[in-house]
Amino acid sequence: MDANLRLVIGNKNYSSWSLRPWLLLKHFAIEFVEQSVNLASADAQLQMQTLSPSGQVPVLWVDDMPVWDSLAICEWLNECCLDGKAWPERARLKALGRSMSAEIHAGFQLTRRLLPMNCRARITLPDMPTALANEIIRIEQLWQEALDISGGPWLLGSFSIADCMYAPIVLRLQTYELEVDEHLVPYCQQLRQHDAIRSWLADAYQEVDVIESVEQLYSER
Amino acid sequence: MDANLRLVIGNKNYSSWSLRPWLLLKHFAIEFVEQSVNLASADAQLQMQTLSPSGQVPVLWVDDMPVWDSLAICEWLNECCLDGKAWPERARLKALGRSMSAEIHAGFQLTRRLLPMNCRARITLPDMPTALANEIIRIEQLWQEALDISGGPWLLGSFSIADCMYAPIVLRLQTYELEVDEHLVPYCQQLRQHDAIRSWLADAYQEVDVIESVEQLYSER
Repeated sequence: MDANLRLVIGNKNYSSWSLRPWLLLKHFAIEFVEQSVNLASADAQLQMQTLSPSGQVPVLWVDDMPVWDSLAICEWLNECCLDGKAWPERARLKALGRSMSAEIHAGFQLTRRLLPMNCRARITLPDMPTALANEIIRIEQLWQEALDISGGPWLLGSFSIADCMYAPIVLRLQTYELEVDEHLVPYCQQLRQHDAIRSWLADAYQEVDVIESVEQLYSER
Repeated sequence: MDANLRLVIGNKNYSSWSLRPWLLLKHFAIEFVEQSVNLASADAQLQMQTLSPSGQVPVLWVDDMPVWDSLAICEWLNECCLDGKAWPERARLKALGRSMSAEIHAGFQLTRRLLPMNCRARITLPDMPTALANEIIRIEQLWQEALDISGGPWLLGSFSIADCMYAPIVLRLQTYELEVDEHLVPYCQQLRQHDAIRSWLADAYQEVDVIESVEQLYSER
């Protein structure tokens, strides 16, 4: 792939969708230019309309061709830059990886709404609605199943798109001080210690812009 | 692919997610067994927990291996049964197809919530919130762009996963009596006249079970 890649992302503190393809690019040391949109700015919507066909981040510009949406970007990178190695070769693991990645791509609505990514924050939840707790349990099941089948250390054995898709969840567990099953702790620690994640978090901690709707979600409780 | 395929779907009148992989299977005449869960039954959740790892439909069983979620099933079929022909060969079209399919997979939340698939019904909307209207406009833009680049007759030229992903939208336009740009009318008509869609609708019209939450959405307005 000789094209120039430019990934447009949101604030690292908040933009869970942006983290996914960014992490894939970084993990596989694919060269790209990073361009940020400040989602907290008054004209964020306008900027995104200019920079992205969907009006949302992330979008990957491949020369003058846009590829947008976290999952589509990951699939594109896998196929066009990584010769397929962002999915495992084993058919069963690849099917599981695609299924669990699609499940988080469209699902887990309560987790999205009630536990928005906010890397800097540490929040003790006052309570945990059952439906939300069930989503977290489902995520733990998926991780455990993947690790059981693959043998680890990453969800599907080698580092894959599935790890990218679930990375924002690992960061949310820290933000909202949620404990996972002890068998999953090493996986979460390993992801948090990934060089790219450490770099993402370091940047997030230095950002000063604030998205009020996220910050105020638990401020009055 | 020598495996036995079994697709578990919901009621054809209502289950937009089920329609997608079902249509792909039918279009490419892939042999499979169809199994239905009646989403209107009291024990629908329990049935789905038994039949699907995610507790949701659709799920494709490949012998004893589950592949779930509409998009993941389509990608799996493309790769394992269709030798890649469910996406176009042209790189730009394939990137567009993946992007627009991912966009509808995770997005268009208002369309999902306010215009649930309901093949049998004909509903004149009392009003149209701007944000919902903007989603429909965005869908029209995507279709037009795809048809402009591909030259049609399907979104990406040949019939593809993108047509499957957007098929429920075409059916919703009819249900909610929404007009699309005249340039898009032939595409919508063509999809509605697809043999598999006609067969799906015929089955939907014969179903008698009712999901109250969907039927009552506009009943009191």
